[in-house]
Order: sequence, then C-alpha cells, then structure tokens
Amino acid sequence: MEMTLTELAAGLGADLHGDGDLRVCRVAELAHADAASLAFLADARYRPDLKRTSAAAVILRPGDLADCPVAALVCADPHLAFARAARLLHPTPPVVGGRHPSAVVDDQARVDASAWIGPLVVVEAGAEIGPRVFVGPGCVIGARCRIGEDSRLVARVTLCEGSVVGKRALLHPGCVIGREGFGFARDGQRWLRVPQLGRAVLGDDVEVGVNSAVDRGALGDTLIGDGVKIDSLIQIGHNVAIGENTAMAACSGVSGSTRIGRNCTIGGAVGMAGHLEIGDDVHFTGMAMVTRSFPESGAYSSGIPAMPSAEWRRAVVRFRQLDDLARRLKRLEETLVTNDQPLGQDKT
Amino acid sequence: MEMTLTELAAGLGADLHGDGDLRVCRVAELAHADAASLAFLADARYRPDLKRTSAAAVILRPGDLADCPVAALVCADPHLAFARAARLLHPTPPVVGGRHPSAVVDDQARVDASAWIGPLVVVEAGAEIGPRVFVGPGCVIGARCRIGEDSRLVARVTLCEGSVVGKRALLHPGCVIGREGFGFARDGQRWLRVPQLGRAVLGDDVEVGVNSAVDRGALGDTLIGDGVKIDSLIQIGHNVAIGENTAMAACSGVSGSTRIGRNCTIGGAVGMAGHLEIGDDVHFTGMAMVTRSFPESGAYSSGIPAMPSAEWRRAVVRFRQLDDLARRLKRLEETLVTNDQPLGQDKT
Amino acid sequence: MEMTLTELAAGLGADLHGDGDLRVCRVAELAHADAASLAFLADARYRPDLKRTSAAAVILRPGDLADCPVAALVCADPHLAFARAARLLHPTPPVVGGRHPSAVVDDQARVDASAWIGPLVVVEAGAEIGPRVFVGPGCVIGARCRIGEDSRLVARVTLCEGSVVGKRALLHPGCVIGREGFGFARDGQRWLRVPQLGRAVLGDDVEVGVNSAVDRGALGDTLIGDGVKIDSLIQIGHNVAIGENTAMAACSGVSGSTRIGRNCTIGGAVGMAGHLEIGDDVHFTGMAMVTRSFPESGAYSSGIPAMPSAEWRRAVVRFRQLDDLARRLKRLEETLVTNDQPLGQDKT
Repeated sequence: MEMTLTELAAGLGADLHGDGDLRVCRVAELAHADAASLAFLADARYRPDLKRTSAAAVILRPGDLADCPVAALVCADPHLAFARAARLLHPTPPVVGGRHPSAVVDDQARVDASAWIGPLVVVEAGAEIGPRVFVGPGCVIGARCRIGEDSRLVARVTLCEGSVVGKRALLHPGCVIGREGFGFARDGQRWLRVPQLGRAVLGDDVEVGVNSAVDRGALGDTLIGDGVKIDSLIQIGHNVAIGENTAMAACSGVSGSTRIGRNCTIGGAVGMAGHLEIGDDVHFTGMAMVTRSFPESGAYSSGIPAMPSAEWRRAVVRFRQLDDLARRLKRLEETLVTNDQPLGQDKT
Repeated sequence: MEMTLTELAAGLGADLHGDGDLRVCRVAELAHADAASLAFLADARYRPDLKRTSAAAVILRPGDLADCPVAALVCADPHLAFARAARLLHPTPPVVGGRHPSAVVDDQARVDASAWIGPLVVVEAGAEIGPRVFVGPGCVIGARCRIGEDSRLVARVTLCEGSVVGKRALLHPGCVIGREGFGFARDGQRWLRVPQLGRAVLGDDVEVGVNSAVDRGALGDTLIGDGVKIDSLIQIGHNVAIGENTAMAACSGVSGSTRIGRNCTIGGAVGMAGHLEIGDDVHFTGMAMVTRSFPESGAYSSGIPAMPSAEWRRAVVRFRQLDDLARRLKRLEETLVTNDQPLGQDKT
Repeated sequence: MEMTLTELAAGLGADLHGDGDLRVCRVAELAHADAASLAFLADARYRPDLKRTSAAAVILRPGDLADCPVAALVCADPHLAFARAARLLHPTPPVVGGRHPSAVVDDQARVDASAWIGPLVVVEAGAEIGPRVFVGPGCVIGARCRIGEDSRLVARVTLCEGSVVGKRALLHPGCVIGREGFGFARDGQRWLRVPQLGRAVLGDDVEVGVNSAVDRGALGDTLIGDGVKIDSLIQIGHNVAIGENTAMAACSGVSGSTRIGRNCTIGGAVGMAGHLEIGDDVHFTGMAMVTRSFPESGAYSSGIPAMPSAEWRRAVVRFRQLDDLARRLKRLEETLVTNDQPLGQDKT
C-alpha cells in the first residue's frame, strides 16, 4: 500500500522532517532500502547504516536526526512506530466471507456470514465462528468450540471439543487447543486415565505458535489471558493460568496447575514444574529450570552457558565434588581458627 | 450420566457413609461442587475445602471421614477411586461404525465395520483398522498400518507406512508415528540418508501426546511397551525401546537405540543420549540431562534451579573456575599438612 | 530389489571376496541377517556378531576380513558403503505424476506433470511445483510457494505463503515452513505484532523433521543452506541463517537472527539465543545452552549430567554458595600468605 510521508507522520504521531509528498510503499532495513522504502533506526548497532541509506525516509529518535541523509519521521520509540508503519503499509487483507466447497461443516454449527471457512476444514456440531474469522486450510474445529471475531487460524489448527478462542487471536499451523491433558491415577503399576472435563479458554488478542499445545483443564479450565503471546513448540498443561500480556518464547513447557502472572516474559526452552505461583512482571531467561514459586517480580535465571568441551568436562567433575569441596574448605577455616589465625566475618 | 451413591460405592469398592439413594451426575472440585457433584480429597492441601463443600458426596480416606459434612465414599486411594468414578460418570461415547463421505479410503484397506473413519481422513492401501477404532478428522493412516481394537486417534494423527498400534491406544492431535528417523552416513562433508527400514510398534494401552514423534527403526523396530504414556512434544528416536508402564512428561527427547525399562517416570524436558541402558523403576526429574546408562533403579536429577539473575551470573563465573578452585583448595590443605597441622579424614 | 555381489561391489567401489553370483535383496543387522541379506561391520562393538552371522555377505574394513565367515565387500568406510547399498537395495519408488481427485489445486498454481499431488492436499494460487515432486496426503502449499524437483513432502506439511524449497528436499509430517515469526513491539504493556515480510528459503538437499518450524524472515529471508539436516521438533526463528551441511538433532531451538556456519553439528535439545555468530565446524553437545557467539571451530558443551537425586540436591545447594566459597578460599590463601607460608603460582 502506498502512503505519503505526511500521511504516515499523522498515522504514527511522528514529527516529519523533509518532503511530506514523498511516497513509500513498503518497509525495509536501512542497508537494503530503496527510494520507495521506509526504514528505521532503533538499535545503535545499525547507526553506521543510517548515513549510507537509500531509503525514502527513516523513523528515528531526535538524537539521530542530524546523521540522517534523507527524510525523517522523528519519535520517541522508533521500533514501535516502525511496527505501526509496517502494519499500515502491509495490511492483512480483509477476510472475504464464504466457505470452500471442500469444507465439511456440520449443519449444527453457526458460522457468521462474514467468516471464511477454507478448503478441507472440518467444523463440528455446535461450533460458533464469529464475524470476519479466517479459518485456513485443513483446520479442525471441534464440537461446541467458540471463536471470537477477527481471529485468524492460519492452517491445520485443531481446536478440541468445547475450546474457547477470544477476539483477534492468531493461531499458527499445527497448534492444538484443548486436548485432554496428561492426567492419570496410578493403579498398581498401570496408569488409569483421568477424564479431563474442563476447557481451554483463550482471551482476546492471544497468539499460539506452530505446533504448540494448550491442554484443557482437568476440572475447571485452563486460562490464557488477554494479550498472551505463546511462541512455537510450547506445551501448556491442564489448569495452567497465564496472566495478561505475558509472552513465552519457543520450546518452553509449563506443567499442570501452575499460575503465571501478568506482563511476564519467559525465555526460550524454559521448563516449569507444576502447581507453582509465578507473580506479575517475572522474567525468566532462556532455558531456566523453574522448580519453585517466584511470587516476587524480578529476573531469574539458571543453566550453565556453553564452554569448550574439555573445560566443561573438568568443571562437571568438580560440580559433583562440590559438597566435598565445601566441607573441606570449612574444615580448613576451622583449623586455622583453632590455631588463632583471624578470619573475616562472612563465612557461612 | 447419573448414578446413585449405592451404585458408585459398588462400582468403586468403597464404603458408603450417608444416603445411598442420593444421585450424582458429575465430578467436581471440593470448592466448586454442587448438590449433583461428587468430589474427592486425596491431597492434605485441600482439607480446608472439605468442611465447606457443597458436594453431594466426597471420596476420602477413613481418617478424613470425621470432617466430612456430607455423604462419603471411603477408600484407601481416593485419587484412584475418583478417576474410576469420573470414568463411570463421564464415559467416552461409544464409537458408531461408519465412514464420513469425505474420507479417502483405499479399496485395499481393511476397515472393521464397527470402526469410525472421520471426515477428511486418508487410509492407504493394506491398512487394517480394528473393531471400534475411532479415526478422527484429518488423520492419515499409511499403507499397511495396523490399528488394534478400541483405539482412538483424536484428529490429524499421522501413521507412516507399516506402523503398528495396539489396542486401546489414545493418540492425540498432530502426533506422528513411524516416520523415517534421523539416520545419515557422512560422505565427505555431505550427509547421505540411510534408508530406515524398520517399523514403529506400539503395544496396547499406549498414549502419545500432541505433536510427539515416534520414529520407525532403522533396521529392526522401535518398540513402545504396553501401557506406556508419552506426553506432548516428545521425540522418540529410531530403535528406542520403552518398557511397560513407563510414563514420560512433555518436551522430552530420547535419542536412537536407547533402551528404557519398565515402570520408569521421566520428567518434563528430559534429554537422553543414544545407545543408553535405563533400568526398570528409574525416575528422572524434569530437565535431567541423561548422558550415561542408569541400569539401577533409583531417582536421578540434574540441572540448576532458577535463582535471581544477578546471583546466577556470579555463580556461573565461579562454575567456570571450579577446577581452579578445587586445585587451590588442595594446595592449601597440603600446605597445612606440611606445617604439621592435623586435618580430618575425608578429603579426596 | 535383488542384486548380485558383483553388481554391489561395482556400485559401492568395494573389493569383493567370495562368490560374486550370490544374490541379496535386503540389508540387515549382522545378528539378524539371513542368506538373502547384506550386513555390515563398522563399530567394533558388533565384532562378536561377525563370526556368527548368517548374512550372504558383509561390508567391512580390510582388518576384519579374516574373521568373516561369509562373502565380504571390503572398503574403507563400511557405514557409508552400507548406506549406499541400502539405497540400492531399497530404492524410494519413483514418483508417478498425477493428482488425487480430492486435492484442491488452484487454477493459478503451476504443477509439473510428473509431480504427484496426493489426497486432500491444498495448493494455493501461484505455487510452483517442480518435476517429480511428491506432495503427500494433507499437505498445504501456500500461495506463491516454490518446490524444486525431486522433493518429497511426506504428509501434512505446511508451506506458508511465498516459501521456497530447493531440490531433493525431504520434509517430514507436520513441519511448518515460513510462518510469521515471533516479532512484536512493546506498546505500553501490550504487544503489537510486527508484520513478517521476508521468506523462508531452503536450499537443495535440505531435510526438516516432524513438527519442526522454520519461520519466515521479518525483513529479508531466513536461509537454510544446501544439505542442512534439521531433525524433529526444532524451532528456527526469523532471519536465522544456517550454512551448508550443518546438522541439528531433535528438540533444539535457534532464536532470531542467529547465523550458524557450515558443517556444524548441533546436539539434541540445544538452545541458542538470538543475534549470535556461530562459525564453521562448530560442534555443540546435547542440551548445550548457547548464549554467546562462538566464531571459532571447536567442540562446546554445557549442562550438568544426571546424578542420584540426593547427591544432586547437595550439589545444587553448594552451587548457590559458589561465590561465597570462592571468596572464603581466597581469604584463606591470603591469611596463609600473610603468615609467610609459601603457596603455588597459579591461583587467580
């Protein structure tokens, strides 16, 4: 879509420096932008690219304006303004209501006339699909599921029976909402499956990535709050609750009944045990191993960063000796104290 | 489904205290149960909810009977009894044999008349589908696969050519059984794929979770024993063997040719190297890194639980110094011994 | 397929010892081979099986020839020769061009007459599918995707709009190429999705495993080099670049904009942060946590191997005390130096 810089400045709430009649039709990186492109500078690493850019205009902070060789849209948060500009220049095409003839839609399903049901989709009895919902190829919408307006199921999404999806969801290919979670009772050596009777309920503006799973509740529901963003290959166990605007990077897993607060960020490949309480504004770095509750906001980490393998092998041997090393150190300290040699205060 | 307490007590082998003519039609949590609900108390954490419950009846241990304000079903293992009650009150609907007209079933497939083949399913030549099997929407059953009686493929399950699934399996959406595993020979810098000629063979009462993968054997078969429960997003490599009733939590991976015994529990996000021998009754806690064989039963762990990030950064620096710290400690000990200061016995 | 040993020796460039007219029709393990089977010995662990084998012939190194009771094909790299023999004896059936009537193929797609479009496949407008491509059941080929000749999409593969797949690809069930990656701008507490405008571009001879995801670029493309092998349940973030012939084992994840060199091997469940530079010939062992760039070739590791849980709990407590332990050790050393007791040179 083509816009003038004047239109963009108005849309972004940015200050325009340069020719407002210039037109751009796409966004691009500073280094690869051409005369029809809009670029941005948010990260100082890319400042060298600014002076050489061929973009029509650049979104940047006031402090970078002097170095900009082309038109500029000046604002306080160039990354956010760039995201908005990209959405204006590259809008998602509007959904055209209808139904592909190959879709299998139960007579007892209610599909809004403005929704699109794509090829080879299955919609079971009692499902309700709201206005302007896009259901891409190969999706399965189980019985009595509900999907709120303007949601987008890209392709091959599965909603199991009774699942609820709010408005403006974005569900990526292969994700599975509402399957029966991993609930068993021990019966001697065997496992007896416990019926999973709750639902998976997703709020508004939720995103679930490729091949991720959000299990239904065992009793009661699994609850994903408004604005939660779940990346790809993530497992969310039964009866988990996640607060508003929490974001989880790929390959993480949350065990059953753990509650995560609002505005948290969970790095990639984080594992959380079950029945934990994680507060608001908690931030876990990638690969953190979360085995206890963290009710207080803050940043938490674990794991050993990679090092040369030979060095690592020695450190691992010593790790197993840690308790012994600590005892030996204590004994040395006591020996020296016995011999009247003064030591500092902070030993434990 | 509605049952009287007398019927339930008989079905569960529990002692009834209270009015046997009371009827319940669902299970619920103690705190949210109503007069048509059956609840249970197995975990002492929920004991405060017992006195306030509005359930019709509660399954509990003899020691909790005195505190129960309503009817009670008394037994030694309330969680197991609750699982059984939930299965009685919320039975899986029986499978109605038939075939959705949109399914693509090869003439050379043998499908029992009592099995259901759902919409947009593909069944290839030579596949055999047993009595009362449920094949949900979007499944792909490859050539010459076999599925035993009463198995349930929820939706979008893929069985690759020649795979075998036993009786009463539960296969969740997106799981893939029997694909060609990750087998290559090095050919200079390039990788030459090695044909994978074995099968994936699942015993009876096996469960495989959402988007998990069980690869076929390279030569010989990958073997999943009776009663094995595999959660979501798990990778099982070629020629792995897993013994009866072993359960694996989500996000784990087992590399090729590793053999796992019976009655093991594998926590979430556990990684196992290839060609290992894991004995019976071995239990790995979540995120364990399994790089050697564990033939002896027992509980094994690894990983560093999350801690405040600032504290973690210091500990990581020290971890890399561990070998040096250990050597310095040893030298101190030797110095003191040289100076005739007695030390304890257990240094190494 | 049946071949004489003379034909096989010629095909493999191996030296034949024994009757060249013997015929074999399959490969098998030494211990389970019969008179129609070809086996191999590459790993010394299996040497005891050699003397007892009932195979028609064995591929082995010159040094093992004396112990071979049957015909032998002698070469320097028996594993590679075995892989080649297995491909000769068990060839992938040639693709028969055509289209299953249940496939939904847009009129604006260009499908080579020699390609096979399987049942319940969706091919959207502008897609180009090359000669002898196999598109298995349930695949979704998005608008304007391109698939090079002789590629094989096993089943239920999703290619999102505009993705490019080279020649001879092998894409396993459930993998998703080119979805919009995890890109957001912070807008107060909310997350604003940033349009993802690049593509996912796979070179020739690429493999992607079950349920793995390769995200499209945000601006610019995600680039998977020729001969790259990606196992199952792997996440590749937007704008990642992976060099030729690098292989990644299952359950790994690579965050956005990280660049990995050629001929690397990445063990299972490795996690990589974003914006890193990994050089050529870098090897990470399983579960490595990669939080910084590794431009130099070499082997790198991290993680704590599993140990008995009781021992682990003690070590973990000590890990948290590591900084304190190190400070106390330093103080002891200083105390002793103050008292004129000589110490070694390499303390830090």
